[in-house]
Formats: sequence, C-alpha cells, structure tokens
Amino acid sequence: MEKIDLAASFARIHDHYHPRIAGELNGQMVKLVKFKGEFVWHSHAAEDEMFLVVAGEFRMELRDRNIDLSAGQFLIVPRGVEHRPVAEREVQVMLFEPATTLNTGNVRNELTRERLEHL
Amino acid sequence: MEKIDLAASFARIHDHYHPRIAGELNGQMVKLVKFKGEFVWHSHAAEDEMFLVVAGEFRMELRDRNIDLSAGQFLIVPRGVEHRPVAEREVQVMLFEPATTLNTGNVRNELTRERLEHL
Repeated sequence: MEKIDLAASFARIHDHYHPRIAGELNGQMVKLVKFKGEFVWHSHAAEDEMFLVVAGEFRMELRDRNIDLSAGQFLIVPRGVEHRPVAEREVQVMLFEPATTLNTGNVRNELTRERLEHL
Repeated sequence: MEKIDLAASFARIHDHYHPRIAGELNGQMVKLVKFKGEFVWHSHAAEDEMFLVVAGEFRMELRDRNIDLSAGQFLIVPRGVEHRPVAEREVQVMLFEPATTLNTGNVRNELTRERLEHL
C-alpha cells in the first residue's frame, strides 16, 4: 500500500492517449492518461467511464453537444454513449473504469491499447 | 450527464466526516467529504477504498505506520485493513468506493452516516 503522487506519475508519461494503470480497487482501475489532439469516436457497451481533469483542459464531444472540462472537474460518461475527447493542448486526465475497459471501446484502430502497463 | 466542479461542490459542504455523493458509475460511488480532526479506527470487510486529496492534507493512520497525504496524492486502502484518517486542519477528499460502503465500516457510532445525500 503506497500513496501515488499524481504530478510525479504524470511526469513519467510522455505520449498521448496511452493510459497507464495507477491503481486498482474493487475490480475498477485508476488510469492516468495524457490527451492531445482528437481521439476516435467510440462507446463502451457495458462500462461507465469517469474523466477527472488533473491539469489542463479538454472538450468532450458528444453526438448532441460538447462539454468543456478543466482542472478540478469531472464527467461520467454512461455506458453506450458515444463520445470523443479533443484536446487543443496536452491535458492530464485520471480515468476510473472497470479493469476490462478498452480505451477505444467498440472501435479498434491504431489508437487501441490492448494491454496497459502499470506506472 | 453533467460535469461536476470539485471546488464548487466542496463549497457546499459545511461539516466534517459526512460524505456526499457526487457521482456513480459501475456500482461505485464518487463521494466528496471534508475531514477535520480524528476519525474512528475501522475497516471494510469486502470493499477497497480510495482517498484522493483535492485540497489540504491529512494523515492516514494504519496499525503499523502512518501515511501523509497532500493535494494531488491518493491512497487505496485494501479491504480488511484497519485505518483512521486524522486531519489537523480541514481537508477536501474525494472517495471512490462501492455504493454499499459505510463510512465507519465495521464500527457504528455517532460518526456513522447511514444514508448519504447527493450533492
């Protein structure tokens, strides 16, 4: 049981849209990821997903509207809802989601990360 | 689906050791709580519990050691592990834990909150 320092952990991440595992509890994972640029439209059939902005800001695009998120704000995207993160500049995000969640959900492409490393 | 602003949410909490529900996903709850003073020693038989410090600092006492936590740091206390938060000054903490988790775990006393309100 060790504490995790978010700033120190994010300093070890040097790429984008590549989540790392920072913790696990109750079958859920805490993942840290940096976003930059446009991700892919996708949804998760059976998993809700939480996005907490640690530093910076990004826009969560939904099919019917966009939601701007900045540091200290979070959004829970329910299962089945199509979404696409877009970050003009690099942003640090903490994710909470089931251990089984694939980053690109129902889509597989070059952004898909099949196996996540622990930080 | 609405974003939650942590600073605005904490501004609406005026008591200590009384968690409020800020979100729910995959059977887990995101709770916001202010700690001040000593809590009660307790454990959760079947639930891991995550503590993320949003502002301020506190000490998590374990039976064999203490872990100091400050803003931007988190700790996952595994099920079954006795713990006691102690905060010299008010601290803002985000909890991530199953919907069923009782704040005082295996103990019931005047600090126990049987039903939590949504913020």
